[in-house]
Amino acid sequence: MVDAVKQAAGQGADIICFSELATTGYPPRDFLEFEDFIDLSYRAIDKLKPYSDDIAILVGTPRRNPVKEGKDLYNSALVIHQREIVFTQHKTLLPTYDIFDEYRYFEPASHWEVFEFKGKKIALTICEDIWNVGNENPMYTICPLDEMMTDKPDIVINLSASPFSYDAAQRRIAVVKANVERYKLPFFYINHCGAQTEILFDGGSLVVNQKGIIVDEMSYFEKQIKVYDLDEVQRSTRPHEQTKDKMELIRMGLVMGVQDYFHKLGFEKAIIGLSGGLDSALTCVLAAQALGSENVRVLLMPGPYSSDHSVDDARQLAENLGIQYDIVQINEAYKSLNHILEPIFADRPFDLTEENIQARIRGVLLMAVSNKMGNILLNTSNKSEAAVGYGTLYGDMAGGLSVIGDLYKTEVFELARYINQEEGIIPVNTISKPPSAELRPDQKDSDSLPEYDILDEILFKYIEQTKSPEDIVEEGFDQDLVRRICRMVNTNEFKRHQAPPVLRVSRKAFGMGRRMPIVGKYLS
Amino acid sequence: MVDAVKQAAGQGADIICFSELATTGYPPRDFLEFEDFIDLSYRAIDKLKPYSDDIAILVGTPRRNPVKEGKDLYNSALVIHQREIVFTQHKTLLPTYDIFDEYRYFEPASHWEVFEFKGKKIALTICEDIWNVGNENPMYTICPLDEMMTDKPDIVINLSASPFSYDAAQRRIAVVKANVERYKLPFFYINHCGAQTEILFDGGSLVVNQKGIIVDEMSYFEKQIKVYDLDEVQRSTRPHEQTKDKMELIRMGLVMGVQDYFHKLGFEKAIIGLSGGLDSALTCVLAAQALGSENVRVLLMPGPYSSDHSVDDARQLAENLGIQYDIVQINEAYKSLNHILEPIFADRPFDLTEENIQARIRGVLLMAVSNKMGNILLNTSNKSEAAVGYGTLYGDMAGGLSVIGDLYKTEVFELARYINQEEGIIPVNTISKPPSAELRPDQKDSDSLPEYDILDEILFKYIEQTKSPEDIVEEGFDQDLVRRICRMVNTNEFKRHQAPPVLRVSRKAFGMGRRMPIVGKYLS
Repeated sequence: MVDAVKQAAGQGADIICFSELATTGYPPRDFLEFEDFIDLSYRAIDKLKPYSDDIAILVGTPRRNPVKEGKDLYNSALVIHQREIVFTQHKTLLPTYDIFDEYRYFEPASHWEVFEFKGKKIALTICEDIWNVGNENPMYTICPLDEMMTDKPDIVINLSASPFSYDAAQRRIAVVKANVERYKLPFFYINHCGAQTEILFDGGSLVVNQKGIIVDEMSYFEKQIKVYDLDEVQRSTRPHEQTKDKMELIRMGLVMGVQDYFHKLGFEKAIIGLSGGLDSALTCVLAAQALGSENVRVLLMPGPYSSDHSVDDARQLAENLGIQYDIVQINEAYKSLNHILEPIFADRPFDLTEENIQARIRGVLLMAVSNKMGNILLNTSNKSEAAVGYGTLYGDMAGGLSVIGDLYKTEVFELARYINQEEGIIPVNTISKPPSAELRPDQKDSDSLPEYDILDEILFKYIEQTKSPEDIVEEGFDQDLVRRICRMVNTNEFKRHQAPPVLRVSRKAFGMGRRMPIVGKYLS
Repeated sequence: MVDAVKQAAGQGADIICFSELATTGYPPRDFLEFEDFIDLSYRAIDKLKPYSDDIAILVGTPRRNPVKEGKDLYNSALVIHQREIVFTQHKTLLPTYDIFDEYRYFEPASHWEVFEFKGKKIALTICEDIWNVGNENPMYTICPLDEMMTDKPDIVINLSASPFSYDAAQRRIAVVKANVERYKLPFFYINHCGAQTEILFDGGSLVVNQKGIIVDEMSYFEKQIKVYDLDEVQRSTRPHEQTKDKMELIRMGLVMGVQDYFHKLGFEKAIIGLSGGLDSALTCVLAAQALGSENVRVLLMPGPYSSDHSVDDARQLAENLGIQYDIVQINEAYKSLNHILEPIFADRPFDLTEENIQARIRGVLLMAVSNKMGNILLNTSNKSEAAVGYGTLYGDMAGGLSVIGDLYKTEVFELARYINQEEGIIPVNTISKPPSAELRPDQKDSDSLPEYDILDEILFKYIEQTKSPEDIVEEGFDQDLVRRICRMVNTNEFKRHQAPPVLRVSRKAFGMGRRMPIVGKYLS
């Protein structure tokens, strides 16, 4: 942050804006309950002060609530200038839904002022504060900007940590435009960029003038410092927006998500189990884009029911990517474990147990390489299988991070085809063959699941849209199928509880934004 | 609930009280976001109506907020009488901390009334509503009972879902007494009993008269229906409280937790890996108390570094409990997996990797029995090792439910000794020998961890009391040790993220009540 302030000041900027809770990262979660952690955030603000002689620093940070009543903290925006905190505005609207827990920690603002700087009055808001335009959002009863308008501000600034989903940028633009429409003021919207484990922030900061023209939309998934001249912004007639392609946005988001997970934990190298199927192939390509081919290593682990083409397809992908691969047979370990279990299982027939043993042997081998070599294991599950529990806990569900776990299988296909457009890096056969776990002879996913285009549609209606089975049936789906799928989703909550964090690209991902009882009896 | 109403009416009761959100279970979590689920809760209320001719039914249930502004739901208490809902009071104080997420779903009440029934005016409150006595709780600014006192009620009733921790009952009594002290009214405090996955509810409903005498404290961890005569309650001078012994409370809580987890999921049988050590021994005893010896099965899985006494101790415990046990050697599988990995690992020396392989082979074997036989695997980790990451993900960290994961190792010892008082069921050697994972020659826990009495004290200060390393050092602990331990806690969040749910017996358990970033940089 100090470097950014110096750079901005060097370019003659009067003001530099950071995002919401920039000192702590977003979301800091229960770190906020440690007095010590709050002390550190105060110290971070102190460290910025010496650099504020010629520039005003606008920065999001937690502040203590001096009043005994109410929560201990505010989610605040400070203005630091000439080595002092010259203005503070707390956040008013505290999102407490989906991935957000702000009411757990913060007291809402009950007092609003504008800040005057170099002859301009600035209305300073934080993220959700601008999402109740004209009090039309049913979740809230206060519109902070309405309150500030009595002071006749000249500019609106919003410091955000607005998480990515593949349609978030469009919704953000709509909200900023709706605010401009209402207040007829130039609007600077500053969004956080970077990943906090599963939560991705895509940047895409906005400068919109009083006429509603998007003067600039900054890059997605890239830290940037840009200087804008207010007069030029106000005069501008030429809009500049980023391209919004769902698959490209998802690809960029997942690449940044992998990068930040590794680098923030101090790791560089990934290990992946490559099956020859599409999920692991796509995960592998994304990992190589994120970490570099030299940092991705794969194991091909054919077992008793693997087809020849699987090994060939996997090897072909590894060679296309130029990544290190090893082929190890699991048959010996599979026999040995079955042998150990023989006295207990006696003559019981082959069932899911033996399928899971194969998947878990692969988990043990991958984790062994992870432990010995210091590579983080990347999980390769997709959202469709995570939803219905089509995966082995401690087997293919293992890993430090789930890369494509918020993509339905149909989206996995779509992203693979999108990535293949240019160089055809994923072997055609990997995309075209029918999905199979290859854990019993001639197995196909469609033996135990409906076709993915139908499954995914039902899952989307149930998970993203929280529709009831009855409502979904009314839209033309088979009643028994819908009930069976909803039931599978709910009864497999125990598996997802132990799944790795999932990079979130949709509006409703498995993980901290979807909190379900395990023993609850709804649709189970 | 219908049976309870019939029984109470048969005993001549005028009023029957159920607990908070009795129709949905507590906490229903994001089920509340499904319209369909709310419909079902309305239907549950309708099903109670026909039984209310001669008795008033007081019941907690979610209700829709008819106003567009604010959250969609209220957390409500209804009075059903003569087939109609004759009174509704919404909850005012919505806990949003630790395991609680009520502000995620509910709009707080802004309107308070008392309810008149058979000549008595009743102030009806819900759980947290009574925890701001005289507005002295800094988290809240409204005291609902103060608001209701303008209507001069004769009785206070509180419908609660107040979760268990080993000191919860004492705190509840103190709060109810403080309310009685302030209002001088008879107080009926009805608490939920039963487990919702990791959250335990201990019952212990209270009847306290206007003089502050605890006329009755109902049983812990046991569903009960008792009829009280108001006149007798008011006249009573003889207090009746339950015994509060920390270890007995924890034992009862864990037994109920296991029972409800299994029965609510439709399972009866458990499988446990019995090592000869104390954690698995205690887990096994608790499982046998919960499910019956005939429903607990164990595997003894000696490996290359297991001592003879471990197998002997484990076998002795199994025989003491009369549970089914099998002894299987893991050496063959260990050799086979090492052999598979040889070309990759080459001459790299033995390290944590090989220790983890042994633990994971045991995980595979236990899960295989779970899959084949339909037994749920119980996890045997304790809180000390979960805190510092002394455990193998997908190995000994596997399982559907963690039974003793909220007990520090010193508490594990304490509970084991408590249980042994009567029959000495746990072999003395299991309790007295130094803890060891036995994953390398002559290993002891104390090789890599400080002694448990010191470790646990530091962990308690950091986890339960959220103290900073500096503050802990000031209390007389070694600086390097404190920093190292706090760092271990924070950097092992990735492991706990994938751990099974932990039966919560303390005021701060790992799980939904402690929400920490994985890549966050605080003390890491």
